[in-house]
Amino acid sequence: MTRSPQYPELDTPCAVINLDTVDRNVNAYQAYCDQHGIALCPHIKTHKIPAFAKQQLAAGAKGITCQKIGEAEVMADAGLDDILLTYNVLGTRKLARLRALFDRVKSLRVVADNVAVVEGLSRAFADSDKPLEILVECDTGGGRCGVQTPKAAVELAQKIESLPGVSFAGLMTYPSAGGGPKVGGFFGDAMALLDGLGIACPIRSSGGTPDMWKAHEVAHVTEHRIGTYIYNDRSLMARDVCGEDDCALRVVAEVVSLPAPGRAVIDAGSKVLTSDLLGLEGFGYVVGHPEVDVVGLSEEHGVLHFEPDLTPFEIGERIEIIPNHVCVVSNMLDQVHLVRGESIKTVDVAARGKVL
Amino acid sequence: MTRSPQYPELDTPCAVINLDTVDRNVNAYQAYCDQHGIALCPHIKTHKIPAFAKQQLAAGAKGITCQKIGEAEVMADAGLDDILLTYNVLGTRKLARLRALFDRVKSLRVVADNVAVVEGLSRAFADSDKPLEILVECDTGGGRCGVQTPKAAVELAQKIESLPGVSFAGLMTYPSAGGGPKVGGFFGDAMALLDGLGIACPIRSSGGTPDMWKAHEVAHVTEHRIGTYIYNDRSLMARDVCGEDDCALRVVAEVVSLPAPGRAVIDAGSKVLTSDLLGLEGFGYVVGHPEVDVVGLSEEHGVLHFEPDLTPFEIGERIEIIPNHVCVVSNMLDQVHLVRGESIKTVDVAARGKVL
Repeated sequence: MTRSPQYPELDTPCAVINLDTVDRNVNAYQAYCDQHGIALCPHIKTHKIPAFAKQQLAAGAKGITCQKIGEAEVMADAGLDDILLTYNVLGTRKLARLRALFDRVKSLRVVADNVAVVEGLSRAFADSDKPLEILVECDTGGGRCGVQTPKAAVELAQKIESLPGVSFAGLMTYPSAGGGPKVGGFFGDAMALLDGLGIACPIRSSGGTPDMWKAHEVAHVTEHRIGTYIYNDRSLMARDVCGEDDCALRVVAEVVSLPAPGRAVIDAGSKVLTSDLLGLEGFGYVVGHPEVDVVGLSEEHGVLHFEPDLTPFEIGERIEIIPNHVCVVSNMLDQVHLVRGESIKTVDVAARGKVL
Repeated sequence: MTRSPQYPELDTPCAVINLDTVDRNVNAYQAYCDQHGIALCPHIKTHKIPAFAKQQLAAGAKGITCQKIGEAEVMADAGLDDILLTYNVLGTRKLARLRALFDRVKSLRVVADNVAVVEGLSRAFADSDKPLEILVECDTGGGRCGVQTPKAAVELAQKIESLPGVSFAGLMTYPSAGGGPKVGGFFGDAMALLDGLGIACPIRSSGGTPDMWKAHEVAHVTEHRIGTYIYNDRSLMARDVCGEDDCALRVVAEVVSLPAPGRAVIDAGSKVLTSDLLGLEGFGYVVGHPEVDVVGLSEEHGVLHFEPDLTPFEIGERIEIIPNHVCVVSNMLDQVHLVRGESIKTVDVAARGKVL
């Protein structure tokens, strides 16, 4: 049983990140991608910290993935200059920011799944020296964004190729869990149609941490986007994608109340752990305490239940929680604490809360 | 059917707050509390903005309620000087901050539900000119913090009275929904025991927005703490506590994709709306579109479903969403936009993310 460190230097609730675990996670998946000839394009949404993006690049990643322009701007400010923005960008304000970003980095690519987005991008880049490369987003079963058929993907690629300022660079999808075969089928069908039209499709980008170790089994994929693998979380433990020791980020909380037998209350609620369940029961795993369930969260309190005859905690005791979904925890905190051996360094989560 | 304003001045996703609605909500509940002789102690967790706290005081509130010291510090910096901190404060760092706060405001009270917390408070305030007033938190069915019985409340009151630097000021509870009768019973029993011991119990504080209009029916209560009423939300609409027109905060989002019949995707996900369900189905109410369900959120995307033969939206169209739980939305955004007539003013959510 792992004992929870008490971190006397820190106030609770907070998040601590074990850098040895980060190193191992980053390097292990980079080695896998290198072995299989897959370009790794890590998604910064999980850490939102430029230093970790740089570490991922130094390990061998091709570039980074961002979801919002505000995230990409923070990364570009820190010197990250190869960015894939996997979002439909719309509106004059966002298009102007996208263009300004494009003009100052080495490489910026985006995605699109509809003509309105493509036309807006074309207008914003019509006078650019080099075209903006667009990947067509495909819905391969995820049920979110994306064209619905290979034929529709090809039609949008043709539209892109017909417009000034933009060029078609390939296909992109965020698959459903276990959706690898569908990705391969969709991409293969679209590539055959594109080939018949003489349209090159050099990039075929898929993503997701749940199926990270099966990325090489997905036909036609050249690139894998992945975020959570750097920290890992309880949802990935539940899917046997990682073990407890692979979970680099832990929320440190303090027991503030033992009001009744079988109940403890901690100072971390939904403002730290969030209400994300990701299909799980309970709101996190209390390290070293499999007998304890995090049964409820209000904004500033977490309620733990256990058998009434147990006394696992004292008032003021600190516990470590592996959150259900680690990406959203990063987004709740202005700062996190990086731990290596006895050293603790506090850093800003620079791209936190960038929803624009 | 209400049409969604398009707010061309703003980028999406964002939150707009109708100040006329805020005025009406603040004044209506203050009038109710005045009519019934209940001291109103609004909880700043919903807005986290000093100007709104000042408005609540100007309307007649007795003081404000905060949950974390960091929130109280922001409010004190802005001149709010009568604060109830409804949290068990533990640890040398937090106790030092609490003491510093106490020494610079007119009134600061806290709660406690166990001896360890009371002893810590006593040590931190032993040399104070005036004692720190403590309310004993009682669990009247909420199942979170709080002593379990009136007898335990009285024992903790006696402990407080026996220690230097602190004094017992009354009872506090956060009841379960519909828990008014239990609150009255618990408080009444504790007051009788205290009276027998000659211990005064001037403050009996309850709270909660769901039962806000029944606060006067709860026996013995002198004070009501309430947060959500200033903005209201979908959870309160579902409980018939308010109507749609009483919901002051709306999330403005843009339709970024119409990938398939019956599906639209917006640029507001869990990083704005959060995953809080509060017992509801779906992640918000799309104003003017009762035919649309917000069926899923990922971090940056919201997925809307509707009948496949409907075409309620165009790409780039803006919609307004009333969130399930408005307090947590405030916590996701660095800024919000205040709207009065044609005027829009952007302000910082100054106490956002204060978890310490």
